[in-house]
Amino acid sequence: MKDKLIFIGVIGGGEVSPEVAAVAEEVGREIARRGAALVCGGLGGVMEAACKGAAEASGLTIGILPGDSRLTANPYVKIPVVTGLGYARNVAVVKSSQAIIAIDGSYGTLTEIGHALQNGIPVIGLNTWSLAIDGKTDDSIIHAASPKEAVNKAIEIVKNGGSSEY
Amino acid sequence: MKDKLIFIGVIGGGEVSPEVAAVAEEVGREIARRGAALVCGGLGGVMEAACKGAAEASGLTIGILPGDSRLTANPYVKIPVVTGLGYARNVAVVKSSQAIIAIDGSYGTLTEIGHALQNGIPVIGLNTWSLAIDGKTDDSIIHAASPKEAVNKAIEIVKNGGSSEY
Amino acid sequence: MKDKLIFIGVIGGGEVSPEVAAVAEEVGREIARRGAALVCGGLGGVMEAACKGAAEASGLTIGILPGDSRLTANPYVKIPVVTGLGYARNVAVVKSSQAIIAIDGSYGTLTEIGHALQNGIPVIGLNTWSLAIDGKTDDSIIHAASPKEAVNKAIEIVKNGGSSEY
Amino acid sequence: MKDKLIFIGVIGGGEVSPEVAAVAEEVGREIARRGAALVCGGLGGVMEAACKGAAEASGLTIGILPGDSRLTANPYVKIPVVTGLGYARNVAVVKSSQAIIAIDGSYGTLTEIGHALQNGIPVIGLNTWSLAIDGKTDDSIIHAASPKEAVNKAIEIVKNGGSSEY
Repeated sequence: MKDKLIFIGVIGGGEVSPEVAAVAEEVGREIARRGAALVCGGLGGVMEAACKGAAEASGLTIGILPGDSRLTANPYVKIPVVTGLGYARNVAVVKSSQAIIAIDGSYGTLTEIGHALQNGIPVIGLNTWSLAIDGKTDDSIIHAASPKEAVNKAIEIVKNGGSSEY
Repeated sequence: MKDKLIFIGVIGGGEVSPEVAAVAEEVGREIARRGAALVCGGLGGVMEAACKGAAEASGLTIGILPGDSRLTANPYVKIPVVTGLGYARNVAVVKSSQAIIAIDGSYGTLTEIGHALQNGIPVIGLNTWSLAIDGKTDDSIIHAASPKEAVNKAIEIVKNGGSSEY
Repeated sequence: MKDKLIFIGVIGGGEVSPEVAAVAEEVGREIARRGAALVCGGLGGVMEAACKGAAEASGLTIGILPGDSRLTANPYVKIPVVTGLGYARNVAVVKSSQAIIAIDGSYGTLTEIGHALQNGIPVIGLNTWSLAIDGKTDDSIIHAASPKEAVNKAIEIVKNGGSSEY
Repeated sequence: MKDKLIFIGVIGGGEVSPEVAAVAEEVGREIARRGAALVCGGLGGVMEAACKGAAEASGLTIGILPGDSRLTANPYVKIPVVTGLGYARNVAVVKSSQAIIAIDGSYGTLTEIGHALQNGIPVIGLNTWSLAIDGKTDDSIIHAASPKEAVNKAIEIVKNGGSSEY
């Protein structure tokens, strides 16, 4: 695996505040600096900010789009994957990533967190959803305090083979 | 709309305790008694128990299956829909329902709750996931204290046109 | 299997001539008369005409829709399955059927014929696509000369266990 | 559009003769030489041979996989997209391509040709399916006599904006 690209997913809402966008941009930049490829849903908000950060650091950006046209991708997506599947494409965003960084979050983000945890793909959270089932806290989402820490944790987990089968 | 069937989705884990199964069975029975059709993922656990309850009350049961064979449906599914899509079929379970009752829950259930809330389809919860985003509780899931109350709330919402467009 | 419903798929274009619609309507009627359920893509053209024929003979009609709303189903669909998957739903139409009757045909119909043949699901054709690969005719599509013959062949194959695993 | 990557899809069977594989490899090599990215289904046969050709010419290869693991990709795929969707992923292979080159062909290839023609994405054929509907030949598939001619035609059509909206 040593010369293979590492794929880190970034998930989050399609419309976000400037503060959240700045966090996402820093996450994207850090992913690129570390030599990993960024996988996302290809649209706006967290997805666009993360792609922008990665593109500025000359990183590879893959956008897995819900709609029927590559023109819906944000301008920083280098590889648009056009699925035409609607939000069922969230499954592909998750499965194409070896670890996921969740930033803030919409209900769509919640579906992606669910798919990732169901598939054993690690999720690192930055101010994102917290979960409890029937009154008991579920602490499967790995907490990170900064973009840099989130990317460090994601890449470390992948390198340690945590989810090498994905 | 008056002579049209109402479709109520039931979601929950594929492997559950006898207590949870008993709740699901009562939910299914109540859906059938009220003349509504039951939509689910067609497999075991909550899905099978709910279908069993509905079938015993002569209800219509629709199982939207992830795999490639109708033989994977539980024995109480009358209409197996074979998708071959894996867990991307969760989107179809949700969108085919006018209201959703979530019982207990796996991570797959969490994806279905996310898709439902994203699409404005009401979710009634029985001992299921609770959600908070960035420290703030999200109370979009409508609480119910019993199977009967859950089904009453689901059918009432649909009849009041809450999500008639779905 | 004796008391289980048989599911026959009907595929064809969404906009067709009155002559083709009449053939589809007769196919739907015959499926219902034989006590089988009709599976289709739920929209207009061949799908609507077949559902109309089946509904007039009190048959069960299942429409697996590409879009996001049950309101897109034709008025003769009793069980709308709302996928939101776009034309990837064609796979579910095919896999949910134990045999397929193809009438006339659009390019979408061609995708369904391909999925059916790939999965070993028998396809009976009424004036539909014919195929050749690298100059050699492919005669996997079973010819029928009339709606009645098409339905007879479809049900006979299913009863003989031709594709009982689907 | 001038500095944007062009994406050319290559479709064909997952198990093919050495002669067909040699054609696919030459197609892949030519796509890379022309500076375009290769999109395919990521598995064996035509897909692997085309990726091999492209990789040897330092091209970018994207494999949109049906299963749940990146380990199912052939060794020449640089960007594995893991969909978990089964053969519904064929839609994404097609829509992610601005023109398609079909080589030989299985029934899966037939579904991809159908999706491409339905979406107005040009299909160039090398010894692939030929189609007729109700006795009339359908000549929508553009004939090519050699790998080089196929790639030339594909790139020319995309540059002329034939399907720039995809």
